[in-house]
Amino acid sequence: MSPPPMASGPRPAAQNRPPPQSRPPPSPAPQEGGSDPTLLPLFRAVDKDGTGQLSERELSAALVNGDWTAFDLHTVRMMIRMFDSDRSGTIGFAEFCGLWSFLASWRTLFDRFDADRSGNISLEEFNNALVAFRYRLSPGFVDLLFQTYDKRNEGVMSFDLFVQACISLKRMTDVFKKYDDDRDGYITLSFEDFLTEILKQLK
Amino acid sequence: MSPPPMASGPRPAAQNRPPPQSRPPPSPAPQEGGSDPTLLPLFRAVDKDGTGQLSERELSAALVNGDWTAFDLHTVRMMIRMFDSDRSGTIGFAEFCGLWSFLASWRTLFDRFDADRSGNISLEEFNNALVAFRYRLSPGFVDLLFQTYDKRNEGVMSFDLFVQACISLKRMTDVFKKYDDDRDGYITLSFEDFLTEILKQLK
Repeated sequence: MSPPPMASGPRPAAQNRPPPQSRPPPSPAPQEGGSDPTLLPLFRAVDKDGTGQLSERELSAALVNGDWTAFDLHTVRMMIRMFDSDRSGTIGFAEFCGLWSFLASWRTLFDRFDADRSGNISLEEFNNALVAFRYRLSPGFVDLLFQTYDKRNEGVMSFDLFVQACISLKRMTDVFKKYDDDRDGYITLSFEDFLTEILKQLK
Repeated sequence: MSPPPMASGPRPAAQNRPPPQSRPPPSPAPQEGGSDPTLLPLFRAVDKDGTGQLSERELSAALVNGDWTAFDLHTVRMMIRMFDSDRSGTIGFAEFCGLWSFLASWRTLFDRFDADRSGNISLEEFNNALVAFRYRLSPGFVDLLFQTYDKRNEGVMSFDLFVQACISLKRMTDVFKKYDDDRDGYITLSFEDFLTEILKQLK
């Protein structure tokens, strides 16, 4: 398993990556799973105040991109919401193991779609990823999506923003499917439905 | 005019506020207007590097709430997008005058709806503001809206978040109206319409 980069562990070397496959797997989904005791030293290093729970601040300090830049705060919060099973607002060890494994899966995908091995995802690479994930999106929309998540205006997407963009797209797609009962590609929404679904995406 | 609080000027004393009126005006809209030379000293104080343009960082450092807490960064960015007429990414003096006047109008409204003069807007006060703005929203939705913008989980809304919530609600309402041609309270959206409108609200 290729772990995601964290301040406490080096980024896996490029030559250890598996060769690209012709058909990538579907985008990673959070898994229920047991704890991985080999992650305990890492967890303890991140748990600066030794409470056995990682706060948003502790996770923020630990989660970094391949170039050691800090994760976008929205990605950190997204991870906490996704893996904080007991709704404590913090990440315990078992929750951390799930989060780590999830980010590791994303890291593998990120490396696969980073075709020129620049350490970032370009618009073209992003488009290839979305096609591989079986989205059918117009070039104009892919452009808008890319621009929205290129939050640092770099013209490329770092790992944290790529994960954020893909998870957000998945969420929005799931909401759309929920309303599109007859699968005709159109949904009808009341005023409060519309506003509520937008607000949920803002969280 | 009651200016919004900024680090470079004291908050106006409560006793200088106009008495509450029975019917408040509609929510403030950005105005095109001339420059106000009396704001030049303030502008220069905020323009730390003396470029004649305020960066996001400079505005962030200057815009504070009544209790001197910094504005939420999303509110600062919202202000820049709204008033950066020449799309330079920064705020020149004329743009600053518009921004300042806009925030002053919001400050007056905020004080009016802050019925207990706590310096924050409670859920009940927020509901009263929305009713005054002629929104018809269910209690459940108002609750969700309040929780979404109570970003510091304080159970109350500071000035910056109140402005952000009201402007976002206005924007979402305008989008809905754009699609609701026949004014029946329902809209029909394609997959990309739906995603595009959500992405626009995230910006």
